[in-house]
Amino acid sequence: MQPDDIAAAMDRIRSSVRETPVIDMQSGELGFDHPVTLKLELLQHAGSFKTRGAFNRVLTASAAGEVGAAGLIAASGGNHGAAVAYVAQQLGLVAEIFMPSTSPTIKRERIESFGAHVNVIEGYYDDAQRACVARQAETGALAIHPFEHAAIIAGQGTMSVEIDDQVGDYDTLLVGVGGGGFIAGQAAWVQDRRRVVSVEPATSRCLYAARESGQPVPVEVAGVAADSLGANQLGAIAWSIVGPYVDEAVLVSDDDIRAAQRSLWDRLRLVVEPGGAAALAALQSGAYKPEANERVVVAVCGSNCDPNSVM
Amino acid sequence: MQPDDIAAAMDRIRSSVRETPVIDMQSGELGFDHPVTLKLELLQHAGSFKTRGAFNRVLTASAAGEVGAAGLIAASGGNHGAAVAYVAQQLGLVAEIFMPSTSPTIKRERIESFGAHVNVIEGYYDDAQRACVARQAETGALAIHPFEHAAIIAGQGTMSVEIDDQVGDYDTLLVGVGGGGFIAGQAAWVQDRRRVVSVEPATSRCLYAARESGQPVPVEVAGVAADSLGANQLGAIAWSIVGPYVDEAVLVSDDDIRAAQRSLWDRLRLVVEPGGAAALAALQSGAYKPEANERVVVAVCGSNCDPNSVM
Repeated sequence: MQPDDIAAAMDRIRSSVRETPVIDMQSGELGFDHPVTLKLELLQHAGSFKTRGAFNRVLTASAAGEVGAAGLIAASGGNHGAAVAYVAQQLGLVAEIFMPSTSPTIKRERIESFGAHVNVIEGYYDDAQRACVARQAETGALAIHPFEHAAIIAGQGTMSVEIDDQVGDYDTLLVGVGGGGFIAGQAAWVQDRRRVVSVEPATSRCLYAARESGQPVPVEVAGVAADSLGANQLGAIAWSIVGPYVDEAVLVSDDDIRAAQRSLWDRLRLVVEPGGAAALAALQSGAYKPEANERVVVAVCGSNCDPNSVM
Repeated sequence: MQPDDIAAAMDRIRSSVRETPVIDMQSGELGFDHPVTLKLELLQHAGSFKTRGAFNRVLTASAAGEVGAAGLIAASGGNHGAAVAYVAQQLGLVAEIFMPSTSPTIKRERIESFGAHVNVIEGYYDDAQRACVARQAETGALAIHPFEHAAIIAGQGTMSVEIDDQVGDYDTLLVGVGGGGFIAGQAAWVQDRRRVVSVEPATSRCLYAARESGQPVPVEVAGVAADSLGANQLGAIAWSIVGPYVDEAVLVSDDDIRAAQRSLWDRLRLVVEPGGAAALAALQSGAYKPEANERVVVAVCGSNCDPNSVM
């Protein structure tokens, strides 16, 4: 995947997504002695970056005549499902979402608020995914995978197109990682122009494990961010981009993530879900230590959680 | 007060305040058929625009040798107190804040989190103000009035300097009004270049009443936004600017304000206090109806409330 693919995705989805704002934070404000620019991607439609990829995927498929009366179908821990439901609502399509019973209620309510039909499946993401595959075989709906598709990855990468316009020259982008689609999109756009640093919970480290093993391998998944970052294996397409272009992979603890959520509430009154706060946690915890003059951008990328959990 | 005064304030406080972001919302997204740009001033330090005025007031006084060991003192429903406490913390000063018992607990906690001493006075803002005046006579601390001072008004006006840089040409700015300092600052900067529309709760309408009477007059104060917008008379300095430059004054109901808060939560996951959502409520309720091609900016200007109250 090349920068041209990301630029084409930006042209395709520009009028459908929000240009989310950035905000500069001074040294010391968030518990570490370094200034940082936050990309407030949590203000995206449906509350996360997932809307970018979903629009690019569905608009591409629609132009190719691949979307029929059965509409869209997806399995999701929540944010991808909300994005697919939002896209379906905007484009006048029906959508069916399969969620694991372990996902937060607020994410289910969000998906239903966009008019999609939600099926809650006992168990974890994989269980929801299996039920989704079976149902798709019956209905023929267009299956929208959360990360293992070039159009999804290209759509997610449009966030970095905006950052270039908004921030100008910078050195390093910190990105939270689930299945790898989000970080792969950013890496495909910035390539070697910026450092790209992946941040994962120590309890759900599929990118970290892929770098250790030289290829995607299955990992166990647990922890506070599992509903958004808890993929049990890095996507193959993501790996083909992440391999050459991600410069460093760091891990954070659940406590680090909770502390980052509290800081974002205390300092900005932003309600950020665990997966959305993970990248910031890498700076606060010292898991990633920037050089003295390094200009750092952090993606704050998901808002779908109970505000009482961040205070 | 002239635009040069606002520009000088911007130079004075630029390194101390956040350049808060703007975000464009499409027609239909927030319950009315018109696009709108939101100025997310609720992301300011201490959670509201009040930090701009407080910095400008204290830095000006400090340069004039008016700040002594007794530090700063203020009466406040909450946001002004939080701003004064934050400024004191940043400048290494002590601060004492008088709050009415009717203000929300979360605002008191915010003020205390910045290290200020809080005195809770039984009653309403006027009771806290009287206690503050008595105490100031004992300590000699610098009294920071929430709106009746040129340096406060000039500081608040710096928000519109940023909007000009961020948005470029636009037609109309909608601003929620308490004692008038915030809207006076914006009006002093934009003068006749933009339409300035004041928005007040029907239950706390001191600017609306001043326009009807041709001068500031006392009004009764009540309603959900009273802790931030509940001034019982428009400030005299504010009136000298608001009189010539505010183009239209509209009123909204408490229900309109609650609906605006819920929309900002549903669509953007932003926790906005009643006073911070009032300006948006004027568009949603139809109290202000823009022309077909009118480019409208809305100040979303305060975040200090319990998130459970906006859901």
